[in-house]
Amino acid sequence: MPHIELNSAEPGIRGLLRYRPETGRPLSELAEVLLRGPNSLTRGERELIAAYVSALNDCGYCSSAHSACAAAQLPGGMASVEQVRSDLASAPVPEKLRTLLEIAVAVRHSGHAVTPELVGAARDAGATDQEIHDTVLIAAAFCMLNRYVDGLATVTPDDPAVYAAGAQRLITAGYLMPAP
Amino acid sequence: MPHIELNSAEPGIRGLLRYRPETGRPLSELAEVLLRGPNSLTRGERELIAAYVSALNDCGYCSSAHSACAAAQLPGGMASVEQVRSDLASAPVPEKLRTLLEIAVAVRHSGHAVTPELVGAARDAGATDQEIHDTVLIAAAFCMLNRYVDGLATVTPDDPAVYAAGAQRLITAGYLMPAP
Repeated sequence: MPHIELNSAEPGIRGLLRYRPETGRPLSELAEVLLRGPNSLTRGERELIAAYVSALNDCGYCSSAHSACAAAQLPGGMASVEQVRSDLASAPVPEKLRTLLEIAVAVRHSGHAVTPELVGAARDAGATDQEIHDTVLIAAAFCMLNRYVDGLATVTPDDPAVYAAGAQRLITAGYLMPAP
Repeated sequence: MPHIELNSAEPGIRGLLRYRPETGRPLSELAEVLLRGPNSLTRGERELIAAYVSALNDCGYCSSAHSACAAAQLPGGMASVEQVRSDLASAPVPEKLRTLLEIAVAVRHSGHAVTPELVGAARDAGATDQEIHDTVLIAAAFCMLNRYVDGLATVTPDDPAVYAAGAQRLITAGYLMPAP
């Protein structure tokens, strides 16, 4: 049961965006730019960064929601999401993506954990400055969103079908809130 | 030296907002609503939550910037900011604010660390649902911003006068970015 009385029964972040649309709007705009906006990282790759950080933060709602979005948009599907989550070092992902995921792991721990060596490895694997920037900000944003969703004890559905349907909705319609 | 090549010499978050205005705009809107929008928590109280979380996250830029903003807007000035930072339990702040700061400490650790007991203590001290919501989101947002600023190794000025002047600018003009 959520720690505060929300104004809808919507689970996870959705109930929070509806409860406080003044903050919901910039939060949803940030997600839209980071996860769906024009980018040299694919939408699947960016959703994978979000899903992986959320799993490391043990946020059931966000990790299920963004794993479903990543799985639906990555060539390897859910198997590739699960391989990253169980062992990044051996997961069959392109080297550039692996080095960016390693930066995301560091960001999750602390901004200070992002070393010149981690950034250099990403650059050696072909990552651009903006890809490094966006990886840091996606990882940091999910350190916020995971805390927001769990810090208010929002509802986390158990049924994977809920997240698969949600992913289709997000892939088609995006993250922006409807205008008031 | 920053990990990526920015397009200005502006320190901390300012250089990042300018580098990527597509994400800078929603980030600055979020800060404006949370720290300066209409609220039953004063601007000084909200800046104190931001400053305290940033100090716990060891983010020099954000903790200096928001400590200066809090000090300029709290009745107790910088002494009260420093007392909270050195020992929250004994700091001379109103009980409601202390309980909200304790929630912020929990959020910084993990969303799962926010217990019904912490929320109940805040409510017993007079906190409303929206105050609890906003405290959780301010603390979570600074867990993002601190990681963003330090994860890209942005420049952190040493001179306290820089932050005092920045605080006056933020108090007068706010966080929103100028229109493009």
